[in-house]
Amino acid sequence: MIKGYAAMEKGGRLQPFEYDPGPLKDHEVEIKVEYCGLCHSDLTIVDNGLGNTQYPVVPGHEIVGTVAALGPAARGLREGQRVGVGWFADSCMNCEWCKSGNHHLCASTVATIVGRHGGFADRVRAHEVWVIPWPDELPPQTAAPLMCGGITVFNPLLLNDVKPTVRVGIVGIGGLGHMALLFAHAWGCEVTAFSTTPEKEEEVRRLGADHFINSRDTEAIKKAANSFDFILSTVNVPLDWGAYIAALRPLGRLHIVGLVTQPLSVPLLPLLSGQKSLSSSPTGSPAAIATMLDFAARHHLEPTSEAFRFGEINEAMERLRQGKARYRIVLQP
Amino acid sequence: MIKGYAAMEKGGRLQPFEYDPGPLKDHEVEIKVEYCGLCHSDLTIVDNGLGNTQYPVVPGHEIVGTVAALGPAARGLREGQRVGVGWFADSCMNCEWCKSGNHHLCASTVATIVGRHGGFADRVRAHEVWVIPWPDELPPQTAAPLMCGGITVFNPLLLNDVKPTVRVGIVGIGGLGHMALLFAHAWGCEVTAFSTTPEKEEEVRRLGADHFINSRDTEAIKKAANSFDFILSTVNVPLDWGAYIAALRPLGRLHIVGLVTQPLSVPLLPLLSGQKSLSSSPTGSPAAIATMLDFAARHHLEPTSEAFRFGEINEAMERLRQGKARYRIVLQP
Repeated sequence: MIKGYAAMEKGGRLQPFEYDPGPLKDHEVEIKVEYCGLCHSDLTIVDNGLGNTQYPVVPGHEIVGTVAALGPAARGLREGQRVGVGWFADSCMNCEWCKSGNHHLCASTVATIVGRHGGFADRVRAHEVWVIPWPDELPPQTAAPLMCGGITVFNPLLLNDVKPTVRVGIVGIGGLGHMALLFAHAWGCEVTAFSTTPEKEEEVRRLGADHFINSRDTEAIKKAANSFDFILSTVNVPLDWGAYIAALRPLGRLHIVGLVTQPLSVPLLPLLSGQKSLSSSPTGSPAAIATMLDFAARHHLEPTSEAFRFGEINEAMERLRQGKARYRIVLQP
Repeated sequence: MIKGYAAMEKGGRLQPFEYDPGPLKDHEVEIKVEYCGLCHSDLTIVDNGLGNTQYPVVPGHEIVGTVAALGPAARGLREGQRVGVGWFADSCMNCEWCKSGNHHLCASTVATIVGRHGGFADRVRAHEVWVIPWPDELPPQTAAPLMCGGITVFNPLLLNDVKPTVRVGIVGIGGLGHMALLFAHAWGCEVTAFSTTPEKEEEVRRLGADHFINSRDTEAIKKAANSFDFILSTVNVPLDWGAYIAALRPLGRLHIVGLVTQPLSVPLLPLLSGQKSLSSSPTGSPAAIATMLDFAARHHLEPTSEAFRFGEINEAMERLRQGKARYRIVLQP
């Protein structure tokens, strides 16, 4: 039996919960969980925000642990090896997207906490391909959030071929945005943080921002027109998208990873005259996650996170819900 | 004196008009006009639709002619050589965009018919860099519209690195869209035309479309979900952008060149989950125009156009205004 913490109903507090995962499948890996980050998507699933939650559900999808058991056909990993699992735990492995290294775009991806149980537990399972070897140099107690939040903001740099020579803006300095600052700085870019919280400026500069713009100051954003080659928005509320598109230089790109549910209102003319793009992306492929972990280890990047024990899960969830976490929360033994 | 046809006031009929262009500048080229395409932007400028028209104005910016005179420092062209001039006649030649081969993104571009006079005249001038050598194999009487409309739909294939292996949708089969069909077909792609006019289907297939979708049939567009890698929209009215984004496969791109003045309403979730992009572009650089002319000549591509004499300019303008042109109009001697 696997022992974890589950929400039994929509929005419910997490309660101790046991389940029988059945026999290990051919390519499945069972992981002894050491650390697990908390992500806003955990709240979303507990709240049935995507409409696809199956209760009871054990949340948790920024998992670091060690290989406890390998399915009969699982290769490339050894028992005891430290590994990570993120938003996805499986995909079909047979479609054009899986076969081309874009497993995260497979139509049959299995999210770690949708229709199955995640990492707020002593053990968790995933397909070998989605179990990513963890570099020795990377401290798991702080870096666990890379497994979902991290790849969400790292992949845009990778897939859009952002060059170290360019000027980057990061909009929203929270759980996602503060990791984006770490990455963009280490990437070699000149980095500007857009934040509604001027009090964060000093900390934000320490995280890697070269410049700070108060994003409630519409005049300041206007003054930044024609300044950026790449802007990454991590906030989940509608913004004045036209102002951020205007802040792009010709050939620039606005990439949005914060899940905004309202349709974006996008003026065409500034996109057209400056040959600009608007784009988005979900998490990343297994190969991209591995690349990110290697990059983070090599550059000694560590998300800023608060530590809670697994037994304090409800206090941790509440702190995240209230937007008080600076900037991520990681559960520890 | 240069003799042409000018609008003397907003929306006015074109009238015979003479102007003194002054001495030829160092890098300027004077062209004896042979043919000139009519473009919707000519109407826009006559109507002061961009708010920057200076009257009197001689429209006309899809120009093919021969070099009549070269400025003292103009190089790379010879008198009598056939050349083309499009939407832009000059740029600063000194900014990062001009220096990197993206002259069309220069902040100081000079449009051929804004604050100066265009090609509905016996002669016209442009900076040597914006005067593009015309391939011998390309018939100027039909291919003149490549100089503005052509590059507007060709550049998206070039700059977005569209591969011949992919499936392309062209939305709106008019002046721009019919040229997009020619290019996308010759590019080696599988091409689907989206048109509100089912009567055009046979002709559209002859132009290069492999498939035809009636774009008023919302069910047909829904059925095309997850079908295209690249969709080029050439219409200037708001569409159900979400439906076209849904019609894209993962990693797909919706590229809009039809000038839609209302803000686009864009749902984020399908962009995010499919890692898709939305983008736009204006005309193209001198190098892109030269590449297009070479490609069109090599593939014997010819826009479908109606011939009018320069003296019939007002009839031609009226026909274009009424949307009756199939698909472009070219003025001839």
